[in-house]
Amino acid sequence: MDNLDLIKALSRASASKIVLLVIDGLGGIPNPDTAKTELETARTPNLDALVARGICGLSDPIGPGITPGSAPGHLALFGYDPLTFQIGRGALEALGIDFDLEPGDIAARGNFCTIDKDGLVTDRRAGRIPTEESNRLCQLLDGIEIDGVRIIIRPVKEHRLVAIFRGDGLSADISDSDPQQTGVTARDIAALNQQASRMADITNRFVARAKEILVGRQPANMILLRGFSKKPRFPSMTDIYKLKAAAIATYPMYRGLAKTVGMDILKTGQTMEDELLTLKQNFKQYDFFFIHIKETDAAGEDGDFNRKVASLEHIDRLLPELTRLEPDVIVVTGDHSTPAILKGHSWHPVPVLLYSSYCRPDGVGRFSEKACITGGSGKIPAADIMPLAMANALKLDKFGA
Amino acid sequence: MDNLDLIKALSRASASKIVLLVIDGLGGIPNPDTAKTELETARTPNLDALVARGICGLSDPIGPGITPGSAPGHLALFGYDPLTFQIGRGALEALGIDFDLEPGDIAARGNFCTIDKDGLVTDRRAGRIPTEESNRLCQLLDGIEIDGVRIIIRPVKEHRLVAIFRGDGLSADISDSDPQQTGVTARDIAALNQQASRMADITNRFVARAKEILVGRQPANMILLRGFSKKPRFPSMTDIYKLKAAAIATYPMYRGLAKTVGMDILKTGQTMEDELLTLKQNFKQYDFFFIHIKETDAAGEDGDFNRKVASLEHIDRLLPELTRLEPDVIVVTGDHSTPAILKGHSWHPVPVLLYSSYCRPDGVGRFSEKACITGGSGKIPAADIMPLAMANALKLDKFGA
Repeated sequence: MDNLDLIKALSRASASKIVLLVIDGLGGIPNPDTAKTELETARTPNLDALVARGICGLSDPIGPGITPGSAPGHLALFGYDPLTFQIGRGALEALGIDFDLEPGDIAARGNFCTIDKDGLVTDRRAGRIPTEESNRLCQLLDGIEIDGVRIIIRPVKEHRLVAIFRGDGLSADISDSDPQQTGVTARDIAALNQQASRMADITNRFVARAKEILVGRQPANMILLRGFSKKPRFPSMTDIYKLKAAAIATYPMYRGLAKTVGMDILKTGQTMEDELLTLKQNFKQYDFFFIHIKETDAAGEDGDFNRKVASLEHIDRLLPELTRLEPDVIVVTGDHSTPAILKGHSWHPVPVLLYSSYCRPDGVGRFSEKACITGGSGKIPAADIMPLAMANALKLDKFGA
Repeated sequence: MDNLDLIKALSRASASKIVLLVIDGLGGIPNPDTAKTELETARTPNLDALVARGICGLSDPIGPGITPGSAPGHLALFGYDPLTFQIGRGALEALGIDFDLEPGDIAARGNFCTIDKDGLVTDRRAGRIPTEESNRLCQLLDGIEIDGVRIIIRPVKEHRLVAIFRGDGLSADISDSDPQQTGVTARDIAALNQQASRMADITNRFVARAKEILVGRQPANMILLRGFSKKPRFPSMTDIYKLKAAAIATYPMYRGLAKTVGMDILKTGQTMEDELLTLKQNFKQYDFFFIHIKETDAAGEDGDFNRKVASLEHIDRLLPELTRLEPDVIVVTGDHSTPAILKGHSWHPVPVLLYSSYCRPDGVGRFSEKACITGGSGKIPAADIMPLAMANALKLDKFGA
């Protein structure tokens, strides 16, 4: 019996409400100048007050030392073992642009690239062409039909695109055309089993057509495809937790991840204020809310320590908008750390704060990495957070008699 | 996907360097007279200074309550699940005397023993005969050939020996002759499956020959064999971690364990000073070093609390020789605890200190069991230490996108 089976067997619907506030890239490491992390630097009186009434800890999204991508980081927070529930690269890219994959669709992540006269790849990203240029090129490639299969091409950002193959009897069991290096030709796409040979043929013919269409253009005169995959089919949070769950996120990727586990996606604006307003307006209709805050991660990725601190303080100022709704359980955490010093996701454990009337406060009075070390939850896998939230919402029955 | 597969998929070669300093038997328990452990008693200013810049915790080599032998203790530190990667007793004994087992060889651990006129074992260790005596007896038994199989006999220490069976088509699937008790005869060796029947026959004939040769000698007039096993075939650290790894150890057993996971073995002397000189001389050639310090464990095994304290202080004085090489990651830990009070290995968790520029210091300022309880790494399985070291050396890619 795996953990989801156990929780599914024990969970029951009730009127209590859970809010999961995900501060993307929450954790940090100390700024060498001050020896303080972003959280330790930020003034967060509202979070600290909630900490004093809650229970804290640190979470490993995947495992010690493993740096999570956004998808596994979030799946873990939703209670899904991220090593079991994996999403293919193409499907993830489609999620990231709010493209609804249909059940038989095969999606691939694509790059516009540059090849020389001998067909050797000289730049896998075609000089990171502007998004507007990519939009135009995608229109040239969109809608081609090969052997009854329609190929839908959507731009992502700069050189990135998604290719969706729509038709009957398609397979994702084919290799990449992207060689992942320069100085070589794009690879022929190969079937990984007999059933996939038609798919390999169609994708190779599509790539050849794309090359013909793009010939002579500079710098984007070719495409590379990788990560052919289907829409993931995961059990829904309604099934597992008996929750009526809603997601509030300003970025499509996180809405897509939430949709993958069966959440309703609430229309919201582009700011944290918009997101909290959306929460307030929909508070009665759902018993679980996932709210995603992107700003912290973006600042961390940019290596902007002070902007990350400011984002944390911004969230803190808005926190009363959330607490005054009086959800039964509030979880504040991140999907991974994004230390500004590292300018990217990292393996460092992520602070977790859980508040409910029934938690066992631990004496921690500050929401920081260092303070959370001594928290009552200890260091836990991120996939354990949802069972703890469910328990604190009194939504889990006893195991055994 | 198990943990080694995951790490193998994410690891990449880079110029950064990791040093794993293993202080054998590091952990202790308090001396009843002072209520302080060996580490708490020792003056260790250099370790304490490194702790202040690093992150600490405690590790369970195998699991809570389980006392590790040296082999599983080290395999865990190298990142190999010690319950999955096991080494047979005979093969381990061969490792312990620097004997290079060939792929088809079968090794057994042997004891010289004493039997009475009825063939009943009266002393399983032949009064722990001196090593010199054992050396002479081993020469009498060495080199016998039976049915095309050559039997190589090597002395270990006192009554201990290794028997290596070398020839075609041998099997390790046979039972022990050692009855593990006195007052009974040595057991006939039995084949555990049909393919092993020739091997059982050969080993029984060898034991009979040994008995003939030793007849009339006192007290060692017979041998007992156990733990027939092959050289272990484990994935190498080069494969898993993409590391160019080297081992520095004064005792053959630890060199053997390192060789088993594909490390190069560096020639060194008999002292800690020799080991650190070897590190310095080879520092440019490798990106991973395992340094093994034996003195602490030996003192613990002897029940000599003060000598263990002195060994810890000795290591501390030499630590600057290591830190001044400026490895990117330094891990200081042990393969298990060896409390002097217990005169042997124990189950107590082992202090772990990890330093890198990218670790998240935890406010711990002293390298001791008690201080490490509040460390930022928390309590972790020892097999998680390598992934953490790899992450801190920026040698692990992100999992998922």
